[in-house]
Amino acid sequence: MTISIAHLGPPGTYAEQATIFYVKWLTQNTGIETILCPYPSIAQSLKAVAQGQTDLAVVPVENSIEGSVTMTMDTLWQLDSLRIQSALVMPIAHALISCATSLDGIQTVYSHPQALAQCQNWLGEFLHNVKLIPSNSTTEALEALEQDITTAAIASTRAAQIYNLPILANQINDYPENCTRFWVISQAATEITHQLPLQTPTHTSVAFSVPANVPGALVKALHIFAQLDINLSRIESRPTKRSLGEYLFFIDSEAAVNTPHMQSALAELNTYTEVLKIFGSYNVLPVIMQES
Amino acid sequence: MTISIAHLGPPGTYAEQATIFYVKWLTQNTGIETILCPYPSIAQSLKAVAQGQTDLAVVPVENSIEGSVTMTMDTLWQLDSLRIQSALVMPIAHALISCATSLDGIQTVYSHPQALAQCQNWLGEFLHNVKLIPSNSTTEALEALEQDITTAAIASTRAAQIYNLPILANQINDYPENCTRFWVISQAATEITHQLPLQTPTHTSVAFSVPANVPGALVKALHIFAQLDINLSRIESRPTKRSLGEYLFFIDSEAAVNTPHMQSALAELNTYTEVLKIFGSYNVLPVIMQES
Repeated sequence: MTISIAHLGPPGTYAEQATIFYVKWLTQNTGIETILCPYPSIAQSLKAVAQGQTDLAVVPVENSIEGSVTMTMDTLWQLDSLRIQSALVMPIAHALISCATSLDGIQTVYSHPQALAQCQNWLGEFLHNVKLIPSNSTTEALEALEQDITTAAIASTRAAQIYNLPILANQINDYPENCTRFWVISQAATEITHQLPLQTPTHTSVAFSVPANVPGALVKALHIFAQLDINLSRIESRPTKRSLGEYLFFIDSEAAVNTPHMQSALAELNTYTEVLKIFGSYNVLPVIMQES
Repeated sequence: MTISIAHLGPPGTYAEQATIFYVKWLTQNTGIETILCPYPSIAQSLKAVAQGQTDLAVVPVENSIEGSVTMTMDTLWQLDSLRIQSALVMPIAHALISCATSLDGIQTVYSHPQALAQCQNWLGEFLHNVKLIPSNSTTEALEALEQDITTAAIASTRAAQIYNLPILANQINDYPENCTRFWVISQAATEITHQLPLQTPTHTSVAFSVPANVPGALVKALHIFAQLDINLSRIESRPTKRSLGEYLFFIDSEAAVNTPHMQSALAELNTYTEVLKIFGSYNVLPVIMQES
């Protein structure tokens, strides 16, 4: 059988790179064949799965420097029918790609806003007078180069290789420990789960809203996990989009959904929350090393 | 005396609009004169205050649809010498600005990523095949128009008026209750506080990191506020940028810093946190109505 996997495109993005690593892991563990399907946005990658255009999507969840990818969280909450199958963490190393022979003549740098933000100190030191222009993806930024020696783009070394473009500077991210966590997403009701390699789940991710104007509702919810000794690896708030000051909370916890502790926690959580969504229980794949 | 105020420019941005409202409130209550100083980024507006180039900065903190403005939070944490003087909330209404006479021929829409995100349903319904291109500010998006009838930009009606550009559609934001909260920021050690109108503070904002790998450290911190009946109006996490899974927490609480309850809370909080920063105690200015 062939599994189709949606990701942010065009080819050369970090999301495609994460998808390729996931595919390698899949083929090492099963005989499954895969096909990669690039989409122009993260939201469209997730909608492709929800609408059955693809079996899976690989989407970024959070970066160690720039934080949550809010588009992923908001779309997961809205679509309401998706399930996390796996998590994976990928190191991110940005390169400055340009047809220029030195930094001197560069006037403009294009990249995805997250990548520009992750290199802001480097840019401030070496290219402090350039104009920074955001793009929809790191790969799309490369379109701006077109042999113009006054422009540069920030993307991966792999993207430079794919599009046969020269690298002017390597490892320009401000923090060497730059990693992005990705989730592999399927439909909630799908047969695909049985095709994927069997893994013991270690994490459960949920999101919930609390009744408006009930002070301490979040504390009560968090207290449930603390009392049951379930460690929370991430707590993130997002606006409900109804009114300023009303939030949804996204929680990643370090326990499988089918353990008695987690079952108690979820049952009790249900009594404090307005809407509670369980995005699934999953394992984190071994840390992926960057391709050389 | 004249007070200089930094904001995200060029003129016509929502940050400038918020600054103008703040200036109106200032002049109604004092004899202070003001000068507005546009900067190309939020980070640079805050640095202008930290380095003494301006007395104040007006910066966006969170939007009711798109959530926190992470650049503001990260820069406040880094600069370490700033103080919140006031908060204000401004309704946001986006317009589609274009020299085209109808939506039919539009192929490209430019705007700040936050504004594009806040209009994504409208764009999906009325302009679903167009290319969306991010810009550094809503005003900068207008530069792309240049009489080209195949392009449009999303910005405020005020920006359209300033640059004498036609509005093709009004109120295109997906949620009518679209508001942004702004903070007025000064240096922590400044004489300027005595020049501003006296207000009774009602909110206190702090940020802290908790020791790595101590389960439940955030719950303990939040519990302190709950026990003292201090309501928290916002809890936000940001990466420490050291390692994936380590966070800073930003908390807005509904109590003045000089109340006995808040003093107890902060003293106890200090024992659970690694670094604790108090960004100040302030009042929220009356809700501002959009200019017609």
